[in-house]
Amino acid sequence: MIAPARDKWKLDHIGHAVQDLTAATAFYTETLGFSVECRETLEEQRIDIVFCRMNDTLVELLAPLEGDKVLSSFLQKRGPGLHHICYRVASVSSELRSLSAAGVKLIDQEPRLGSRNLQVAFLHPSSCAGVLIELCGES
Amino acid sequence: MIAPARDKWKLDHIGHAVQDLTAATAFYTETLGFSVECRETLEEQRIDIVFCRMNDTLVELLAPLEGDKVLSSFLQKRGPGLHHICYRVASVSSELRSLSAAGVKLIDQEPRLGSRNLQVAFLHPSSCAGVLIELCGES
Repeated sequence: MIAPARDKWKLDHIGHAVQDLTAATAFYTETLGFSVECRETLEEQRIDIVFCRMNDTLVELLAPLEGDKVLSSFLQKRGPGLHHICYRVASVSSELRSLSAAGVKLIDQEPRLGSRNLQVAFLHPSSCAGVLIELCGES
Repeated sequence: MIAPARDKWKLDHIGHAVQDLTAATAFYTETLGFSVECRETLEEQRIDIVFCRMNDTLVELLAPLEGDKVLSSFLQKRGPGLHHICYRVASVSSELRSLSAAGVKLIDQEPRLGSRNLQVAFLHPSSCAGVLIELCGES
């Protein structure tokens, strides 16, 4: 097994799946005092996103649009709640190679374009003690 | 509604519920390169805890001991995975008063002693867009 050298991983954001994006955004901004950092629609995945920030904490609110299947299925099974954890890494592709060599099952074999124009990839929860882990980075 | 003034909230840790604490700890340390920061048993709640850290990111692994009901019920319904998000605040009790006045349903009406000898309190997911939120602090 390849020795891990991931001491430069940094928590990027916490993914929070919701059905009602307006109500969830109001909770974070009006009740908790977060600010909206950016809004985005992932047309291919049919997902609407609002990033809310308070200091170093970034929460990605995700809501399904008509035509989405994956996120809707998550919401149907589990209801709104914590969805994934995203770590910022120097190189998504080199982390994928190293994690795959260490036996971690990957959802994305190669980085792909995600929100905020970053390269992203997901690791399979079955290899991550049940948690959906996303990696993001410039490359 | 009281205007939020929570700009000093800081993400403290991410709670990750697991059945197999040894395997989950090995995943974080051996595969991802986290370090074990501390281990604790909450006797009253019948929960075993391992805190794993990488840089600023702290993950609290929670596993049920014999006699636990709440965490076991979570694991039975949802399987292992993300359990809660904990924010560090200056005063848990004053945040509870302010959040309650803003209409947020509280699980703990008053702070109580939690892990790491901190005062903690949980907010009800039904008021937090489906997420279990913990607050922790020195008072």
